Amino acid sequence: MTQMDRSVLLPALSNIATRLRIDSVVSTSATGTGHPTSCASAAEVIATLFFAELRFDPKDPQHPGADRFVLSKGHAAPILYAAWAEAGLFDRSELLKVRDIASDLEGHPTPRLPFVDVATGSLGQGICAAIGSALNARRIGSDYRTYCLIGDGESAEGSVWEAAEVAAQDRLDNLCCITDVNGLGQSRPTMWQHDLEQFARRWRAFGWHAIVIDGHDLNQVLDAFAEARATKGQPTMIVAGTVKGKGISFTEGKDNWHGKAFKNGEEMDRVLAELQAQFVPQQEGLDLAAQIAKPSARPADPAAPSALPAPEYKLGEQVATREAYGAALAKLGAADVRVVALDADVKNSTFSDRFEKVFPERFYQNFIAEQVMVGSAMGLAARGAIPFPSTFAAFLTRAADFVRMAAISNVNVKLAGSHAGVSIGEDGPSQMALEDLGMFRSQPNFTVLYPCDAVSTEKLVAAMAWTRGPAYMRTSRPKTPVIYGPDETFEIGGLKVLCESADDVATVVGAGVTLFEALKAYDLLKAEGIAIRVIDLYSLQPIAGDALVAAGTATRGQIVTVEDHYPAGGIGDAVSEAVSGAGIKVHRIAVREIPRSGKPEELVERFGISAAHIVAAVKALR
Amino acid sequence: MTQMDRSVLLPALSNIATRLRIDSVVSTSATGTGHPTSCASAAEVIATLFFAELRFDPKDPQHPGADRFVLSKGHAAPILYAAWAEAGLFDRSELLKVRDIASDLEGHPTPRLPFVDVATGSLGQGICAAIGSALNARRIGSDYRTYCLIGDGESAEGSVWEAAEVAAQDRLDNLCCITDVNGLGQSRPTMWQHDLEQFARRWRAFGWHAIVIDGHDLNQVLDAFAEARATKGQPTMIVAGTVKGKGISFTEGKDNWHGKAFKNGEEMDRVLAELQAQFVPQQEGLDLAAQIAKPSARPADPAAPSALPAPEYKLGEQVATREAYGAALAKLGAADVRVVALDADVKNSTFSDRFEKVFPERFYQNFIAEQVMVGSAMGLAARGAIPFPSTFAAFLTRAADFVRMAAISNVNVKLAGSHAGVSIGEDGPSQMALEDLGMFRSQPNFTVLYPCDAVSTEKLVAAMAWTRGPAYMRTSRPKTPVIYGPDETFEIGGLKVLCESADDVATVVGAGVTLFEALKAYDLLKAEGIAIRVIDLYSLQPIAGDALVAAGTATRGQIVTVEDHYPAGGIGDAVSEAVSGAGIKVHRIAVREIPRSGKPEELVERFGISAAHIVAAVKALR
Repeated sequence: MTQMDRSVLLPALSNIATRLRIDSVVSTSATGTGHPTSCASAAEVIATLFFAELRFDPKDPQHPGADRFVLSKGHAAPILYAAWAEAGLFDRSELLKVRDIASDLEGHPTPRLPFVDVATGSLGQGICAAIGSALNARRIGSDYRTYCLIGDGESAEGSVWEAAEVAAQDRLDNLCCITDVNGLGQSRPTMWQHDLEQFARRWRAFGWHAIVIDGHDLNQVLDAFAEARATKGQPTMIVAGTVKGKGISFTEGKDNWHGKAFKNGEEMDRVLAELQAQFVPQQEGLDLAAQIAKPSARPADPAAPSALPAPEYKLGEQVATREAYGAALAKLGAADVRVVALDADVKNSTFSDRFEKVFPERFYQNFIAEQVMVGSAMGLAARGAIPFPSTFAAFLTRAADFVRMAAISNVNVKLAGSHAGVSIGEDGPSQMALEDLGMFRSQPNFTVLYPCDAVSTEKLVAAMAWTRGPAYMRTSRPKTPVIYGPDETFEIGGLKVLCESADDVATVVGAGVTLFEALKAYDLLKAEGIAIRVIDLYSLQPIAGDALVAAGTATRGQIVTVEDHYPAGGIGDAVSEAVSGAGIKVHRIAVREIPRSGKPEELVERFGISAAHIVAAVKALR
Repeated sequence: MTQMDRSVLLPALSNIATRLRIDSVVSTSATGTGHPTSCASAAEVIATLFFAELRFDPKDPQHPGADRFVLSKGHAAPILYAAWAEAGLFDRSELLKVRDIASDLEGHPTPRLPFVDVATGSLGQGICAAIGSALNARRIGSDYRTYCLIGDGESAEGSVWEAAEVAAQDRLDNLCCITDVNGLGQSRPTMWQHDLEQFARRWRAFGWHAIVIDGHDLNQVLDAFAEARATKGQPTMIVAGTVKGKGISFTEGKDNWHGKAFKNGEEMDRVLAELQAQFVPQQEGLDLAAQIAKPSARPADPAAPSALPAPEYKLGEQVATREAYGAALAKLGAADVRVVALDADVKNSTFSDRFEKVFPERFYQNFIAEQVMVGSAMGLAARGAIPFPSTFAAFLTRAADFVRMAAISNVNVKLAGSHAGVSIGEDGPSQMALEDLGMFRSQPNFTVLYPCDAVSTEKLVAAMAWTRGPAYMRTSRPKTPVIYGPDETFEIGGLKVLCESADDVATVVGAGVTLFEALKAYDLLKAEGIAIRVIDLYSLQPIAGDALVAAGTATRGQIVTVEDHYPAGGIGDAVSEAVSGAGIKVHRIAVREIPRSGKPEELVERFGISAAHIVAAVKALR
């Protein structure tokens, strides 16, 4: 973006690149771990990006109009930190604390740092987040641009090609990515080594504008960024041929230097002497950091959200929670302009098409590509949107690693998974989510919700949107009756006691479809003179531990959990941990083998989670 | 493969295609659910494949020399079933039971059926398994070919492009895939609709031979298969333009017919009348099923495995279990020719390079693409290999959906994940697996192992190889001392009681790195006169429930679990469920927040899983 004369600019950029290399080397050697050679290959690209291209305020990394940079090859974190130090955000001495437990300058970038939008370090994810960031610029009407650096080895990840399709489909010309083709992976040469045309060919086939350059030639790097800025209607990929370990002669292009810090002492002295010798004369007093282009205009704050009107469902009405989810999302979209929805070609099954009909401009289609859907949502969330990506819950396992990184990023992503459990019926096990509750509960900062009826679904959709942090809602395929009135309130971390008496012999905890099996069991047992307490555990995480202990204690120390889910990490495990230490026995009813196709009610019976099984379990309690 | 004159062949194939359409329509309407229009678009391709191209024995679908067919677009299952009925494997009347709980003809194909190698229905996975099948032909020296049908919508999945890279890199000219470009997804037109060149361009860019055809023109389909067979040095993709709902005029190319069965009665009568009218005159008495080409020669049975020589580690020797894993894999490779290893460019961290050094021809490099690594392993396993795919445990979450489908497929895949937990140290949370035990335990048929030392690692690697079904082993980054002698035996489903006395106040259950924290806690408590029982729970699934109950009962009803893992689905949950109902209290020590970078020992302390925390927990027990 700079207009500076190149005869002045180039030596200054070159010296910054050298300084970034030195900083990367020194900071990794402080703890003796890290990836200095992966930083060295990117030094010219990073120097040019930060000090001649990006528009940002070094003192306000979160400025909403500033250009964004995502380091998808997160193991090059030290050079990212060095660039921000060079820009003036913090003192260079901080770099000696990289990877120290007392520093937020971690081994791979996380949003504990104000200049990191999403955590990277699991490869192939940053570019997906960059798409979300680019979509967000459109959403808020800003001309900020998004840049993303990926590795050549990283390009083997399928998620990169999901991103490629979606970015081209969405004509994201405000997105510019760079592939750092240093030719060496962790354990061996990469697939294409320095055959740059292999990369360009693929990106062009996927609809991108591709520019092949020498990534150490500052003129070419500057020209490529300018060309990307001038390219309309498609995203740009700059394929930058580089040398791993560049500037440190004994590592240049050499295998077996990945992820190795230099030893302080003789080895480091040699490295530093060589790098120091690479400084060139430059214009006296020239400070590129002081000349960084200002961010684009600060976008207006979004309109304050309004409260959701009361649900209009009638008691006893039959509504699938997945359908109530879609309807709630559309209502929420009207109440809060930050809410956006993302789909992977199942909008007519998850009912997210209800949102699309009302807010097509806030609805992002990813086709059948769950990884980029979740990754893009992470980028949107990091820039202020409240994204709801949804698909079949089973297919969210496709994005499990993105869910893990969303937790590490602690972003405001609100996932929803439909078609949970054997109760989906005939489609069979490939379409049945039976591990999703465990997957999301395993992330300690995720809110995990599982409503049983339309009213609780609608109220919890709003609650999850407006509770800070990542969240997951599980919805069901079959229609279930509305059991809650429009004024019922649902706290995250709460539960509902639906049946209760002084004679209860056990507490039965259900959620979603199994709540209705529990209610049927209540009737069946009541007819035999046996009373049970029935709880709707709509919030699995956080969980109402005290209320569960109270219920279990009041019902002879016996709790029966029932879930349309495998045992591991689900309702039974959640309840069991919540009451551990209270001397309460928890009997888990769950799906315990790989299921098969059949009618929903047949499967609920066959796989052991029906009312009859609850009745038998209660009777068997000692 | 047939040499029949086309004037005779084409009408017969056309009639088979019509019959397959009719069967697909009728079988889905029997249960009122399914995807007839997704079958209809593929009828000419399937008819040609089964009755003019594949070499197989319709009565012996598992013949090891037979060509393989993987239906990656698994929702078209009815036409696969219809083709096998047409070939004569079972009676056509069975097709009326598709999706019935009493039939193995499920909504999506699973290996409950003898002609299905891996379960499909989660899109983008079948093509990965097809690569494993093609690699297997090389492994056993067979010239059988592998065919795979994928959907156009499915092509958005990143795993498809991981497969594209690996198949081209491995020059799999024994692999022929077909994209059924019917232009319509579930909820809307696909990204490229009928722009066939978009597909061809991508596949060519990825190094495949691509052939664009009209997928309803039998001549073109036949020619394309012949061209694929003649293509050397690269895999072939046949891009087949088709019409969704082909042959049923009111659905042809129409949106909103995805996954909808026709209603029996008037609607069905209309459909059948129209399809029946499509039969053409053909040579009397010609039965293509009787002329299917025979499979290639039956490969020799593999050499019987020999027992593994005893471990050579010395007590007290410091060895990381990840390194012991690599060494064991190499030993195992010598003992069993079926053992193969797969990597995603971390072989020098997981130590699978130990295997590669000895058996390079049985080592498959997938570069940084975990989905195809696991999917390819599924295909290899389905054809008789015993594949060990390994990477950092954190990055196996990238293949979580493949793990789910491996469980449904019940294939012999042996996964290994290194670098578990906060004990990896400085690299930070993106590289720390803290949910892997839960992920694998959630699949009911997975064996889950977590050895603490080199000897148990080596013995358990052999045990997992030779125990039928999918399995996972978690290994650790830090070195740990060898505590078991070479003659110690390790049963899957077993545990080891390491410290025991009549005065034990609690049982402490650890595994992997936390076992050593438990042993430290034992010493610290002993010095204060407090005795604890210490258990090495190296097998999490199956789990030695009786032994845990016995230990817990003998130690005042108190168990403390300690794990380098988040609480959900891990050691604490496993133990808790195993002892549920026995009145034993289980106190779970686990990592309860998102961790950060730091030294391993600092993190073990900071995140609450050190010996000091065990000591405190034991002292706090009532």
